[in-house]
Amino acid sequence: MSSFGPRVEVAVARLRDDIARLHSELTRNGLVVWTAGNVSGRVPGADLFVIKPSGVDYADLAPENMILCDLDGNVIPDTPGSDRSPSSDTAAHAYVYRHMPEVGGVVHTHSTYATAWAARGEAIPCVITAMADEFGGPVPVGTFAIIGDDTIGRGIVDALTGHRSRAVLMQNHGPFTIGKDARDAVKAAVMVEDVARTVHIARQGGELIPLPQAAIDSLFNRYQNVYGQAPQGALK
Amino acid sequence: MSSFGPRVEVAVARLRDDIARLHSELTRNGLVVWTAGNVSGRVPGADLFVIKPSGVDYADLAPENMILCDLDGNVIPDTPGSDRSPSSDTAAHAYVYRHMPEVGGVVHTHSTYATAWAARGEAIPCVITAMADEFGGPVPVGTFAIIGDDTIGRGIVDALTGHRSRAVLMQNHGPFTIGKDARDAVKAAVMVEDVARTVHIARQGGELIPLPQAAIDSLFNRYQNVYGQAPQGALK
Amino acid sequence: MSSFGPRVEVAVARLRDDIARLHSELTRNGLVVWTAGNVSGRVPGADLFVIKPSGVDYADLAPENMILCDLDGNVIPDTPGSDRSPSSDTAAHAYVYRHMPEVGGVVHTHSTYATAWAARGEAIPCVITAMADEFGGPVPVGTFAIIGDDTIGRGIVDALTGHRSRAVLMQNHGPFTIGKDARDAVKAAVMVEDVARTVHIARQGGELIPLPQAAIDSLFNRYQNVYGQAPQGALK
Amino acid sequence: MSSFGPRVEVAVARLRDDIARLHSELTRNGLVVWTAGNVSGRVPGADLFVIKPSGVDYADLAPENMILCDLDGNVIPDTPGSDRSPSSDTAAHAYVYRHMPEVGGVVHTHSTYATAWAARGEAIPCVITAMADEFGGPVPVGTFAIIGDDTIGRGIVDALTGHRSRAVLMQNHGPFTIGKDARDAVKAAVMVEDVARTVHIARQGGELIPLPQAAIDSLFNRYQNVYGQAPQGALK
Repeated sequence: MSSFGPRVEVAVARLRDDIARLHSELTRNGLVVWTAGNVSGRVPGADLFVIKPSGVDYADLAPENMILCDLDGNVIPDTPGSDRSPSSDTAAHAYVYRHMPEVGGVVHTHSTYATAWAARGEAIPCVITAMADEFGGPVPVGTFAIIGDDTIGRGIVDALTGHRSRAVLMQNHGPFTIGKDARDAVKAAVMVEDVARTVHIARQGGELIPLPQAAIDSLFNRYQNVYGQAPQGALK
Repeated sequence: MSSFGPRVEVAVARLRDDIARLHSELTRNGLVVWTAGNVSGRVPGADLFVIKPSGVDYADLAPENMILCDLDGNVIPDTPGSDRSPSSDTAAHAYVYRHMPEVGGVVHTHSTYATAWAARGEAIPCVITAMADEFGGPVPVGTFAIIGDDTIGRGIVDALTGHRSRAVLMQNHGPFTIGKDARDAVKAAVMVEDVARTVHIARQGGELIPLPQAAIDSLFNRYQNVYGQAPQGALK
Repeated sequence: MSSFGPRVEVAVARLRDDIARLHSELTRNGLVVWTAGNVSGRVPGADLFVIKPSGVDYADLAPENMILCDLDGNVIPDTPGSDRSPSSDTAAHAYVYRHMPEVGGVVHTHSTYATAWAARGEAIPCVITAMADEFGGPVPVGTFAIIGDDTIGRGIVDALTGHRSRAVLMQNHGPFTIGKDARDAVKAAVMVEDVARTVHIARQGGELIPLPQAAIDSLFNRYQNVYGQAPQGALK
Repeated sequence: MSSFGPRVEVAVARLRDDIARLHSELTRNGLVVWTAGNVSGRVPGADLFVIKPSGVDYADLAPENMILCDLDGNVIPDTPGSDRSPSSDTAAHAYVYRHMPEVGGVVHTHSTYATAWAARGEAIPCVITAMADEFGGPVPVGTFAIIGDDTIGRGIVDALTGHRSRAVLMQNHGPFTIGKDARDAVKAAVMVEDVARTVHIARQGGELIPLPQAAIDSLFNRYQNVYGQAPQGALK
């Protein structure tokens, strides 16, 4: 067992629990099939993150088989789960953590409706108030990139840097979401599929009514500051 | 603990149970994701209503964290749950209770198909008998309104006053439903999504056959008076 | 307690169990919301059938609140459940039992896709082998009829008499299915929604390939005689 | 009880468990209704396979009622389950095992979206990376064939021999999938429905962006060799 000091060890242990448990939100919300999809979370106060192993059944995910990585995506040896391969999207998660220090969680799925917009390379227009609340405008598209090097990570960071949206539709691929922590990124993954579905269905039925920009701004600002028991939404 | 006398205290306690439990109907029927959606109920015999806290997980909703409000939407201090913020839609619920004394329950969701009609600002035409039974005609659209003052509440009341429908599609936002009590408003929320979905899918496949007005009237009147073990439907 | 002799009483008791339990197949297969939908079964060897009470929660259905009726749809007094109103569709079920002696079960739902075809008054074309197996051709449309007299029952009987299909789409209303017993009619209700959904989605994507009539005949005949552990399908 | 020697008997017993359990993946993933669909697996080291009985409820499937067949599809007498009829698709499964020695599992469903493409006789274009990973290109269509002789089996083998895809859409019928074992074929059945749904919905919304062939090749090759804890995908 490598040692990062007791404070970090406690944070890693808690994060292993969180990440294992948060994967069940992906299945419960119908965002993934089989072993697809992955959630990661940054270890507070350390250059480390915890991510799911590659190609393992959702029913078999447990804190002890979550994998601890450094911010280059290398597995930390001699830690629980380090005998397995991490998610094949680990390089993309690592790139985001290296380049967006405000991000504490990353999620990737192939959820149906968000991936459908991605297959057309089309941003989701902001026509419902829930979308203005959550994403503050349209959900953008990231450039097409092949897995295996930094191009996916770079595509995510380019699309989301300076953007209100915590979700990006990687072209021909699917959604990646970020958040202040892993749970917040999972929420964004749930919400991006929800708005992708609603706006798709709305447009199948006829012409959409745009939301005025002033209304979008007002809704987004309120949601950041008023909704819930504590402030929500965009990363500060 | 504030005191409204034993009769009201008993009614509040029972209503806390009902409101907490009825939220599970929203998830069971697939009307909400994450923490979206809210149910409230008027306290019989008092100028009070009970509503969900803002931004709390559905799994964590319990009678003791439901929030008691007066009809201006102010939280009653020193009551269970009063340390939390009520639903961000509380002002709209309060407005309805103030202006529609026959209403005993209000529900708001962003359910997919009803919200899709709302994103086009299009009323749902009455082309199936279940819709004539339940809503007595088309489901109307309410004017676009920004959260934060009385405009949403006023939009609901304007659309539903003197209308058979217990559901309104607030433009670019989603459905609000009313009922003689909270359970009746939840039923309307379930049914409006069901008819929104069926009529959307029907129209995707070709031209709809309108229901004759006389048939709609006959179905609605029968359903009010004959269906079930007791009269149903529109508020008297 | 009325008495029909011990043989009939045993058959009624068994049927109450079956009918209560079969309603859970309607919810499990997503065919109904709230209290919609109903299943009935003919009592073997007697001019009686058992049906669901009107407007009662699916969770509260139990053998002892199923309702025993004669073939005119009258509740048999002083039997379990006879203090409640039977399903508002009881007259239609009774009409079918009176006029189609080979029918042992009737089911009615407002399942989404079947009702969508009904809202256009359009028969489902037979373009998939599962549909040829189960229904032996297109699923027909029944004439529009208002609840409250024999017009719905007559519409069902007119559409299904001499037809291979055990399902009919009552125009602007929804599907009714029949079977050799209640379970067989529930199967037909599940399958008609399945084919209604598949054929709707298929046609949204482009032109359908028709099945040759000889192939439909061959599939239907095989399925009647070979499939399963005992013969299936159309009523003999 | 016939005897194939202790090694084969152990393999058969394990396979009965697997096949019974894998059927629950079909229902859990929403690929089948009622008794439709079937999974089989080849017995390692013997000219035998295990398949589901015909027309039996999913809830009643258990290791001891799975049926052992030879590669001509004949039931092996005096083995558990041999008093029942095997799946009506047994001849097609047997044909695949006889002609594709690398195949260890076969699955057939009428899953909604895959069957919708089949009803149009249209291959699913490869426009999302998950599809390139899993199927290495478009999912092909097999020629229309009537159940009852070798034409279905031949259609499957003709379409999949020398093809990267482990799934074929039999025209007007539905998907068949193959795999290195039964679990791998079930994975292909889950994934083909997932991509059939996503690509259908994507195309309803507008024009799809094709994936470059070089990207498809790269994704497929990586997925075969890198993804998961062991190599995945196409049969070697």
